Amino acid sequence: MSAQDQLVTWALERFGPRAVVTDRDAIDPWVHDWRGRYHGAAPAILQPDSTEAVSAMVARAAAADVALVPQGGNTSMVGGATPPADGSTLILSLRRMNRIRALSSDDNLVTAEAGVILQTLQETAAARKRRFPLDLGARGSATVGGLVSTNAGGTQVLRFGTMRGLVAGIEAVLPDGSVHDGLSPLKKDNRGYDLNQLLIGAEGTIGVVTAANLRLVPAIESRAVAWVGLDSPMAALDLLRRMEARSTMIESFEIIPGDSLSLVLKHIPDTRAPLASEHAWHVLIEVVRTDGRGQEPQAVLEESLADALETGLITDAALAQNEGQADDFWKLRHSLSEAERASGPAVQHDISVPVSAMPRFMLDAAAAAEAKFPGTRATAFGHLGDGNVHFHVRAAEGTDAERFYADEAEPISRFVNDLVTAADGSISAEHGIGQMKLEELERLGQPARLAALRAIKAAFDPHERFNPGKLVTLAPKPRRP
Amino acid sequence: MSAQDQLVTWALERFGPRAVVTDRDAIDPWVHDWRGRYHGAAPAILQPDSTEAVSAMVARAAAADVALVPQGGNTSMVGGATPPADGSTLILSLRRMNRIRALSSDDNLVTAEAGVILQTLQETAAARKRRFPLDLGARGSATVGGLVSTNAGGTQVLRFGTMRGLVAGIEAVLPDGSVHDGLSPLKKDNRGYDLNQLLIGAEGTIGVVTAANLRLVPAIESRAVAWVGLDSPMAALDLLRRMEARSTMIESFEIIPGDSLSLVLKHIPDTRAPLASEHAWHVLIEVVRTDGRGQEPQAVLEESLADALETGLITDAALAQNEGQADDFWKLRHSLSEAERASGPAVQHDISVPVSAMPRFMLDAAAAAEAKFPGTRATAFGHLGDGNVHFHVRAAEGTDAERFYADEAEPISRFVNDLVTAADGSISAEHGIGQMKLEELERLGQPARLAALRAIKAAFDPHERFNPGKLVTLAPKPRRP
Repeated sequence: MSAQDQLVTWALERFGPRAVVTDRDAIDPWVHDWRGRYHGAAPAILQPDSTEAVSAMVARAAAADVALVPQGGNTSMVGGATPPADGSTLILSLRRMNRIRALSSDDNLVTAEAGVILQTLQETAAARKRRFPLDLGARGSATVGGLVSTNAGGTQVLRFGTMRGLVAGIEAVLPDGSVHDGLSPLKKDNRGYDLNQLLIGAEGTIGVVTAANLRLVPAIESRAVAWVGLDSPMAALDLLRRMEARSTMIESFEIIPGDSLSLVLKHIPDTRAPLASEHAWHVLIEVVRTDGRGQEPQAVLEESLADALETGLITDAALAQNEGQADDFWKLRHSLSEAERASGPAVQHDISVPVSAMPRFMLDAAAAAEAKFPGTRATAFGHLGDGNVHFHVRAAEGTDAERFYADEAEPISRFVNDLVTAADGSISAEHGIGQMKLEELERLGQPARLAALRAIKAAFDPHERFNPGKLVTLAPKPRRP
Repeated sequence: MSAQDQLVTWALERFGPRAVVTDRDAIDPWVHDWRGRYHGAAPAILQPDSTEAVSAMVARAAAADVALVPQGGNTSMVGGATPPADGSTLILSLRRMNRIRALSSDDNLVTAEAGVILQTLQETAAARKRRFPLDLGARGSATVGGLVSTNAGGTQVLRFGTMRGLVAGIEAVLPDGSVHDGLSPLKKDNRGYDLNQLLIGAEGTIGVVTAANLRLVPAIESRAVAWVGLDSPMAALDLLRRMEARSTMIESFEIIPGDSLSLVLKHIPDTRAPLASEHAWHVLIEVVRTDGRGQEPQAVLEESLADALETGLITDAALAQNEGQADDFWKLRHSLSEAERASGPAVQHDISVPVSAMPRFMLDAAAAAEAKFPGTRATAFGHLGDGNVHFHVRAAEGTDAERFYADEAEPISRFVNDLVTAADGSISAEHGIGQMKLEELERLGQPARLAALRAIKAAFDPHERFNPGKLVTLAPKPRRP
């Protein structure tokens, strides 16, 4: 009997049938990534329902030299939770660990287990008149463990930051099965290297997060949403800066090129342009009020946009007149990817550069990519205030999708990643490295940084038993940083 | 010639006489900690003035197996920058690296080299109508490199956090001399383990910080300061919570026991009680306004305190009527340690527990310590909103200081640290581990966490050449986490 089979048998005996899945059909949805790009295999899924069970399974797996792929909602954009195709790993699913252990609205803290789904977390907070201020498209599937392990972002990062800014504590099982209990929400704690910070964004490669203590913020009382037309990303950043000087309540500030809006209007039913005239660029702004004090969001937007119109910074603007209209504006933003998919093949990049450099980068990089790959159209949209845009290069019209992805995707991505790196930016702003960006990270990372990543991986998981083949690999042979 | 001497000779030849100090009198101030508790020795100080020079010196030291103690302003409270007494290390001073490389008031960012002194940084920001919102007593000596490496806190952490919340980027030289350039201020960057986060609070044991990109905030337009008398720490936390629900502009919220105030009034000239009546507890509150919008700080305080008086939450309150009075209130707070020193020997603890647990902890721990060590008086004061108080146990009246420190200090500290650990708190909230708390960290740390600290140290600095004997040591033999 293989070491994997022995482990599965042991887990069945010790934790019962709910703790182990061996049925092929039941396993199948979890060995492919949701975009259908990565196809793995695993003979079984381990499904512990407590930290103690995770600890016992991991210790047993370590002793038996069985590698594990930690998995939450399996919504990775970079193949980060898909096991290797050779069946050499078991999946360690955290989905059964889905309890809210504690919620204190006085302390604005919630302790959620790794398997709690984002939407459930949001609803739990809302029921207590609080808000968990992180949101993304996969909210119905993504889990707390995955959100922490990928330092997830989304459309609401402007005020409260990414997951790193929302984590007050972490509990994790390390590759030898030992438990790191860092849940205590200490605002000041200087007892050496911050293990919690190290686990955030580590993609399950040096520990598996079993629970997190997360910050809550006051619930939104009212919001105002505007759609703005303007000439350039520079004008958009200027507008953001002016609004930030006026109000601390800017919740979202999304930039959208005119070209991308056209695709939405063309391909997505029941959409219409918020502005009568055409514009090279648009921004979608949401301002909120949470504490019954300070200016009304509607007034903040009205005053800011009136000033901006008067000085010629923007060319047109529409304020949503009601919640329905606000949702319509947001639907345009959320439909960008779908519209693009409907219009033909594209290579997508999730990149960031310093905020101040982003407007120029959007224009220059798009021009450079289109010049280098004739016939393509390059567009950037997303979270301007975070310096994070999704930079997409669409195939020339009529290009065969298969041929495009086979021949052009890689050179285009390398070209874009070179530009980002030259601009002191990141080739992965939100999505992580997973297996998709591993080669590019190795190609473009600073030697000192790559050596440090390998040294950290080797320190925690020298036998590469935790999420092997993701984020960092120990070959080429680790050099000490 | 010893390896140290060879390195010194090489540095002199390559970088000139300003880069090396070998004069004993010039070295002397830097081998003792400022409180006179730790006395080390070093045959020379290396003083590079550029990142390249740091890199070259560290690489050469690594090749020659010479250990280095990175040093900034030498203001550690835990002997973190004092070399060992056997002269086995050279000091690597970053004080000559004192340039402000860049400051953008649009971006609210400043890139400062490691040797920039905190007060200089504050003044540089103020000259551009911005503020660097971290302050502490050693502002005239403490340097950026040390502040980052100790994740410094202070009295203004409530709104903007410790250094961790203010660092947008880090440049550091790793123990092999390679340079980590993580200065780019990316708000979203998910390229694996966050090396910047790992270096914050690492006390120079895995890398020496050479520069940091730091966040600035708007300058303060106006402030209001109040002194409040109340019955208990629980009432104080309740008041803080109510004020936080009302305003986001609470800059400081310091708790002071009546007993400690009495010592100040007794021992410090030109001080007087802000309130006519006596109170068991006091809080000092500062509310600020920065952006010309929102409520006047005075009004926030008046309304909050009027409500609190009416409901009986507090028993008395005085608002500073002018800046002079505000300074007088703050002088009382800043004189607490001096007054205590004047009144006799005391053992001090810099501890934190979760904010919600702090009021109860302050009372219970003080009672427990006084019961366990008859005749002592235990008091706690400090930053209630951060869960961080300075917990001092004073000797019984008439106790001989030397005897007290020799016989009682250690048992008292162990007792207090046991209580903190049992409350899921930290034995070092602000000051770090250095050499002072090394044994207690080893005694009280979770096994998984201690193993992780050692594994990280071994990954970056297996020969313990960076700040040896501080924060973590590799003996007992590292176990993999």
